Amino acid sequence: MDCMVCFVRQALDASRLFTDDEKIHERVMRKVLKAGSEIDLTQSPPLMGEFLHQTIKEELNCDDPYRRVKDDFTKFALKLEDKLREKVQASDDKLEAALKISIAGNIIDFGVKSTLEEKDVMDAIEHALTEPFEKSTVAQFRQDSQNASEILFLADNAGEIVFDKLLIEQLPKEKITVAVKSGPIINDATIEDAKASGLTDIVRVIGNGTSIPGTEISRCSSQFLEIFNRAGMIIAKGQGNYETLSSSEKPIWFLLKAKCKVIATHLNLPVGSVVLRKHSQPE
Amino acid sequence: MDCMVCFVRQALDASRLFTDDEKIHERVMRKVLKAGSEIDLTQSPPLMGEFLHQTIKEELNCDDPYRRVKDDFTKFALKLEDKLREKVQASDDKLEAALKISIAGNIIDFGVKSTLEEKDVMDAIEHALTEPFEKSTVAQFRQDSQNASEILFLADNAGEIVFDKLLIEQLPKEKITVAVKSGPIINDATIEDAKASGLTDIVRVIGNGTSIPGTEISRCSSQFLEIFNRAGMIIAKGQGNYETLSSSEKPIWFLLKAKCKVIATHLNLPVGSVVLRKHSQPE
Repeated sequence: MDCMVCFVRQALDASRLFTDDEKIHERVMRKVLKAGSEIDLTQSPPLMGEFLHQTIKEELNCDDPYRRVKDDFTKFALKLEDKLREKVQASDDKLEAALKISIAGNIIDFGVKSTLEEKDVMDAIEHALTEPFEKSTVAQFRQDSQNASEILFLADNAGEIVFDKLLIEQLPKEKITVAVKSGPIINDATIEDAKASGLTDIVRVIGNGTSIPGTEISRCSSQFLEIFNRAGMIIAKGQGNYETLSSSEKPIWFLLKAKCKVIATHLNLPVGSVVLRKHSQPE
Repeated sequence: MDCMVCFVRQALDASRLFTDDEKIHERVMRKVLKAGSEIDLTQSPPLMGEFLHQTIKEELNCDDPYRRVKDDFTKFALKLEDKLREKVQASDDKLEAALKISIAGNIIDFGVKSTLEEKDVMDAIEHALTEPFEKSTVAQFRQDSQNASEILFLADNAGEIVFDKLLIEQLPKEKITVAVKSGPIINDATIEDAKASGLTDIVRVIGNGTSIPGTEISRCSSQFLEIFNRAGMIIAKGQGNYETLSSSEKPIWFLLKAKCKVIATHLNLPVGSVVLRKHSQPE
């Protein structure tokens, strides 16, 4: 139910990104409120998001209202890339630094926030780099990545995947497949964004078969599921993947910023926390 | 339209304050979403708030879901009262200090925030006391209060009115009438709260004739309007009063914390700003 507050906000955000016409904003909002009043609340938040954003897309007659925001943040992240890679290279523990930068990049999430300044991203990176990780957790992550014969990396947002690239460079990348969304949903990364980020140049990237802002296993493509079931290590970025996979029986590494109260409470952490956590048991 | 996001949140807040039964939370939220999808958006936000909270009250079968929160914050503010009065007394400019404390008290607003800790209030007071006011603005406020033969003080929230008491003590209080809401709406102060705060012991307090979270002139009682029209000085606390009176032709002193983006943008100030501003011209 708390997520409904964000969906109403997203309806306004998406409309305003697409047009300045307040008549259209109003029409979209009324439609989303009406659809929300009848929505199935037993679904995961990403599934509700898919349904309501479908309503938004239809009303706007636009499949990808966040296109410009995604391009902007990809460009912004690409400008930072070299400097951040230097930071990783200069670190005592390169993997740990890359993990922190990748998680900090998860702040680029228009599902949670209406506006995001480049300064917010810089602050998140500074914050993440000073946040201590348990050495044993990083060691376990490293071990898992070495042991697994296949690694599936579930990406989250456009722009953020540039930061993920720095993490992937610290992992045995020949074993990695990155899954992005097969169609646009909020500012989630698609193949188009993966190409623009240079991610496709260094690693295999596939679509997961859905336009859902998470990984809803029951809806993913068979190509994706084959890898999901086979992979010895799964790395899941962001809140949407946590919301859809936190009860999975697969051992999954969740990497995210806990940006809203619902997720933070579920993780038993304060809002804003940097999370690197392995679920090896269903919850 | 932005306010709709808050109304959906308020529907959840009010339901959760009233009961732990999630079935009821869900029923109330669906009703409010439905009502919101058909609402007249040309109204002021407080009028929309009245309409949607009427829906909430009917669904909950409870006229005053914020009762406990109001009592808690009145008690909390009363505990602070003596200490804050000492702060005022120890200040070089007692009126300025009392103005700052009164405005800081405007943070006790459940229309804007779901949860509020006592620490938030303390932080707001500390912040307000260090915030510089233009000397000339305070001087103008003092002058107006001396010149006016009658002063109308439009109160905002329960708890907050304890802080307002400290301000009223620095003004010619025999000339002041405080107007509160005539019926419960969100955590706005009513006569009951004014009594519990000791406000009725030092100054005349009346209801404004409405249960609207602001001052909607077209709906106020004739008793209230008589004073409103006659008063040489009007002091309006909080966002709701600003939303309903910012275009008034009466010269009005607005005292508030700009807590949301809509209001802050309208005032051309950052969110969180402490506002002491006289409108002497209609906008």
